[in-house]
Amino acid sequence: MKNQRETLVFFLLFVLLKMVMCIKIYNHSRYGDRLAELSPSYCLSWRLAVETDNIQGWRTVPIQCLHDIEVYMLGGQYASDVSLIVDHISNYVDEIVVSNDGFDAWVLDVDDTCLSNIFYYQGKRFGGDPYDPQAFKEWASRGVSRAIPQMFQLFHKLLQRGFKVFLITGRDETTFEQPTLHNLHFQGFFGFERLILRSEAYKGQSGIVYKSEMRRKLVEEGYRIWGNVGDQWSDLHGQFVGNRTFKLPNPMYFVP
Amino acid sequence: MKNQRETLVFFLLFVLLKMVMCIKIYNHSRYGDRLAELSPSYCLSWRLAVETDNIQGWRTVPIQCLHDIEVYMLGGQYASDVSLIVDHISNYVDEIVVSNDGFDAWVLDVDDTCLSNIFYYQGKRFGGDPYDPQAFKEWASRGVSRAIPQMFQLFHKLLQRGFKVFLITGRDETTFEQPTLHNLHFQGFFGFERLILRSEAYKGQSGIVYKSEMRRKLVEEGYRIWGNVGDQWSDLHGQFVGNRTFKLPNPMYFVP
Repeated sequence: MKNQRETLVFFLLFVLLKMVMCIKIYNHSRYGDRLAELSPSYCLSWRLAVETDNIQGWRTVPIQCLHDIEVYMLGGQYASDVSLIVDHISNYVDEIVVSNDGFDAWVLDVDDTCLSNIFYYQGKRFGGDPYDPQAFKEWASRGVSRAIPQMFQLFHKLLQRGFKVFLITGRDETTFEQPTLHNLHFQGFFGFERLILRSEAYKGQSGIVYKSEMRRKLVEEGYRIWGNVGDQWSDLHGQFVGNRTFKLPNPMYFVP
Repeated sequence: MKNQRETLVFFLLFVLLKMVMCIKIYNHSRYGDRLAELSPSYCLSWRLAVETDNIQGWRTVPIQCLHDIEVYMLGGQYASDVSLIVDHISNYVDEIVVSNDGFDAWVLDVDDTCLSNIFYYQGKRFGGDPYDPQAFKEWASRGVSRAIPQMFQLFHKLLQRGFKVFLITGRDETTFEQPTLHNLHFQGFFGFERLILRSEAYKGQSGIVYKSEMRRKLVEEGYRIWGNVGDQWSDLHGQFVGNRTFKLPNPMYFVP
């Protein structure tokens, strides 16, 4: 009887201990969720400030945000963000009455707008490493960037609706014209009106100045720029920006 | 002996059951966290698209995002976002060489830039309900909006650095001049150069047109607008926007 009582006491103590542990784990998980929901995140603030052009001229992603940006780019949120923006662009496209004169135009940027460099930046800690012109040159020369699916669909919708599509890129003309054309074609971007690259005359100029100048020429040719899509504010600021501009997300690098 | 063995078997079964339950709860919590980290959120995408001006002319927050916006506004992320932006504004202010001629100026918006309407919008489901001019008029007439602390500090820093601060608001002059002045003073906003409200002449005009016109007058008076802070893109677009513009977050309402 004594042994039996001892076993019972031991058993009851153990049950009590286990219950306390379970409650602790359960509460921790609930508390953790609540914390995750409520705890303000520096990296979310940093990304918002970058995307709204409040922070300019940054060279690398803050070290404490490397993981956040990786999760953002690969975990689905980036894709969700692009999808929602392209849905809204598409609605806007539907509203436009396209004329028959062939002068209704759209301007699209290339890098991280039509073609994704995410696999390149994966090797650069998603923007944690500073810009490496030589490595990027090698990457871009290979012409293996993938189409951003939502933008690929938009591109073809624009063509179907009768717009002339101009791709304006800051890439250097001498070095990148052939691999960029090859890359675009290989990814199914056919039928654009012109691929405009940075000629010698605009070397060293900021994106805003160079791209404004390229758009000015289009407007002088008689084109009406209905929309302008880019992942950098320098694609969308300056002159002749177009009737509507659309900013795709890019927390990995900044182009002035 | 038989009783003792039965107790022991019962005890072991119970321990096993408890361990399985604990592992399940623990895994669920880990899986939940992982999911929360990876699952793309429509409401995050919507908020980013609004803050980057990709979505324009929206009237209410999507119904499925009401909880997200409430958590965003009250849970600390909004405050964190404002803090990070104001830190960057402050760094920019430090770089400016202020002249002695008294013509170095900053332009600040009032609603949800200097003064917070969060308690008003709490009663409007944080933007879930459409704009209610009568209710807002009653709220604004009471003059009980609180200062946004980070902007309050920036305001006084600007004065200390020798800038002339112009507050330009879309609020109607006839109705709101006195309560707005009272509210600003009560919240410690003293020493601004001018509070500019919307006079009869600009009634019904868009924020972009009206505010561009107000800034044009300042520039014609000789002021150099170094910076311009607002929670709406209509505060920051148009003409004479200033040397740098800064967009504070506001996912609760849109002003054209």
